[in-house]
Amino acid sequence: MEKQIKAVIKDVIDFPKKGIVFKDVTPVFGNPAIFKKMINSLAKRYDGKKISAIVGVESRGFIIGAPLAYKLGIPFVPVRKPGKLPRETFKEEYALEYGTNTLEIHKDALKKGDKVIIVDDLLATGGTAEASAKLAQRCGAKVSEITFVVELDFLKGRDKLKGYKVFSIAHY
Amino acid sequence: MEKQIKAVIKDVIDFPKKGIVFKDVTPVFGNPAIFKKMINSLAKRYDGKKISAIVGVESRGFIIGAPLAYKLGIPFVPVRKPGKLPRETFKEEYALEYGTNTLEIHKDALKKGDKVIIVDDLLATGGTAEASAKLAQRCGAKVSEITFVVELDFLKGRDKLKGYKVFSIAHY
Repeated sequence: MEKQIKAVIKDVIDFPKKGIVFKDVTPVFGNPAIFKKMINSLAKRYDGKKISAIVGVESRGFIIGAPLAYKLGIPFVPVRKPGKLPRETFKEEYALEYGTNTLEIHKDALKKGDKVIIVDDLLATGGTAEASAKLAQRCGAKVSEITFVVELDFLKGRDKLKGYKVFSIAHY
Repeated sequence: MEKQIKAVIKDVIDFPKKGIVFKDVTPVFGNPAIFKKMINSLAKRYDGKKISAIVGVESRGFIIGAPLAYKLGIPFVPVRKPGKLPRETFKEEYALEYGTNTLEIHKDALKKGDKVIIVDDLLATGGTAEASAKLAQRCGAKVSEITFVVELDFLKGRDKLKGYKVFSIAHY
């Protein structure tokens, strides 16, 4: 799976800014054979593990998390950027290179006893994933694993996520 | 299907601003029985129609479009907010109540001969959907239908989309 995914991911030089090589995963979504195989392999990984919801991180986490939830037949819960969720939310702030960002989850999206998988496309420094996991926990849920299509090993995001199980399909 | 979806959609008063009753579709995503039935009924609608890709509009369009593409076994193509897609894009500006917004699509995401469905969660005034349809056309694709979970009939978004086939599951 890793080899097939790496074969379609596109390197984009100097995006979003000079000196960064961006891993563009949109070709994975545009390749139905690989996309189906990827979703099915994740579903197989979590099937029978009593996972009660998939938490997808805005926006690319939605593209992976929603089909995974559909395949597993369990709820899909979005973690969103500030001001997007209309009802009462928990908020988590996390640090960026300069300044901070905030993520939100509906307070009633998960409950005590839930066992969830957090899904995003790419693990870089881990700030987004950590905030998402904390949001799920603030609803009372247990985070069973955090899963990514791509992990940039050299950014050591996994260190920030110690205390969580982390799984990534493709490593750079 | 319409009745089941309306039974879980939540009305949020004065969101995002005073006087607006927001239709919150996140409970549809959180109800696996209804979500699966909805995706399967859309897949049945488009199966055998030679649809070559699903175009999902950021962000809630991703949550519906990605499982639909997965189920149909065809590519999923994201239409995104400005600056999010890393490679060469087409851009379409559209009017808001105050000012304008822009949407983008990767130039190589679709090609001449493609026949696509545009997917979003909600049809309000139709600006986002129209821009998304134009983006698909600029790649050379034909827009077979634009599909929504919810249509706010009183906002007459369908008038802006004349020239396109429009399908919505639930009407208000």
